[in-house]
Amino acid sequence: MAPTYKLTYFDVRALAEPIRYLLAYGGIEFEDHRVAFEQWPAMKNTTPYGKLPIMEVDGEVIHQSPAMARYLGRMLNLAGDDEWESLLCDMVVDAFTDLRMLTSGFFREKDQSIKEKKREPLFNETIPFYLDRLDKQVEENSGHFVRGKLTWADFYIVCCLETIGTTLKICFLDKYPNLKALTEKINNLPQIKEWIEKRPKTIF
Amino acid sequence: MAPTYKLTYFDVRALAEPIRYLLAYGGIEFEDHRVAFEQWPAMKNTTPYGKLPIMEVDGEVIHQSPAMARYLGRMLNLAGDDEWESLLCDMVVDAFTDLRMLTSGFFREKDQSIKEKKREPLFNETIPFYLDRLDKQVEENSGHFVRGKLTWADFYIVCCLETIGTTLKICFLDKYPNLKALTEKINNLPQIKEWIEKRPKTIF
Repeated sequence: MAPTYKLTYFDVRALAEPIRYLLAYGGIEFEDHRVAFEQWPAMKNTTPYGKLPIMEVDGEVIHQSPAMARYLGRMLNLAGDDEWESLLCDMVVDAFTDLRMLTSGFFREKDQSIKEKKREPLFNETIPFYLDRLDKQVEENSGHFVRGKLTWADFYIVCCLETIGTTLKICFLDKYPNLKALTEKINNLPQIKEWIEKRPKTIF
Repeated sequence: MAPTYKLTYFDVRALAEPIRYLLAYGGIEFEDHRVAFEQWPAMKNTTPYGKLPIMEVDGEVIHQSPAMARYLGRMLNLAGDDEWESLLCDMVVDAFTDLRMLTSGFFREKDQSIKEKKREPLFNETIPFYLDRLDKQVEENSGHFVRGKLTWADFYIVCCLETIGTTLKICFLDKYPNLKALTEKINNLPQIKEWIEKRPKTIF
């Protein structure tokens, strides 16, 4: 029997969306459990490391979005053709994670004076630095992050870039034609298109 | 012919040390290239995403310490016995990375007023929260992070925990007997013991 999948996250796309994309792409049925923000404080300590998303696979709890996305990616043959190409997927996702941690830290920063100090270097240096390199990597890899092949790194980064844009209210894709084209390519895959049409409409 | 490995990092242990441990454990010869901090500004833009460590494998540049450690771990049969156990390694390393990003961000924060605001929640909430859970995970997994097996997650986290302790000047292992025992177990593996004896003595 096929394993059961129950994904638990908030009622937003953000870190769960790459997982939802991969499940949708693979035609894997899953329970898309969404928790209200008010429920979270009472729930936090019951999760493995105090964070969401988590996913139950036949009742076993797994966590951490890059680890889960890689696992699904390998299962769906979306991790390149050998260990070296799997490494190439991991490298770009890890590099992107460095950016993602900074943008999500900024978004969640509650101290306004810290936030204002962080704003200028983040928006004018860090974000352009990473987006330039990511765009160049897609250009040099025939429209994907790894050797012209569709991999879980494409799904992961396309989804998270959208979150960065939405949460920080910046519209950057027009400046990065290769990232823009990759985003359109992923969002136009028939399974993803169908998922986007049916998924709950949320703020980010 | 065996591939050649050239690891480039600063003259410290930190993020390169899990890679050096894995190479030493696997009996893999490598060039341990160390760059002076003064050389870094001129070099930064020549690296894939502006960071070290990088490693040249037969001249191909790879980057990102978790990605590199996973690659070596899989090569050395240190990633569990199947894809699920490989996922379990990835999950705990990713969870640990959330902590590591916060501690390294704190360590490198140059604005003293931000640093002082971050100190109390980091030292009194975040660090104990993660160390409690990591210690419990080792306890529940027979002295390792994953099912009583030696994996690259052990090497990665043991090395990085040492860096957190040294850079933040906190001595926490006595409070976490399972993490302490795992650290001793890793550091007493014959190949690692030999590496520790011969490696350059550095500040962290």
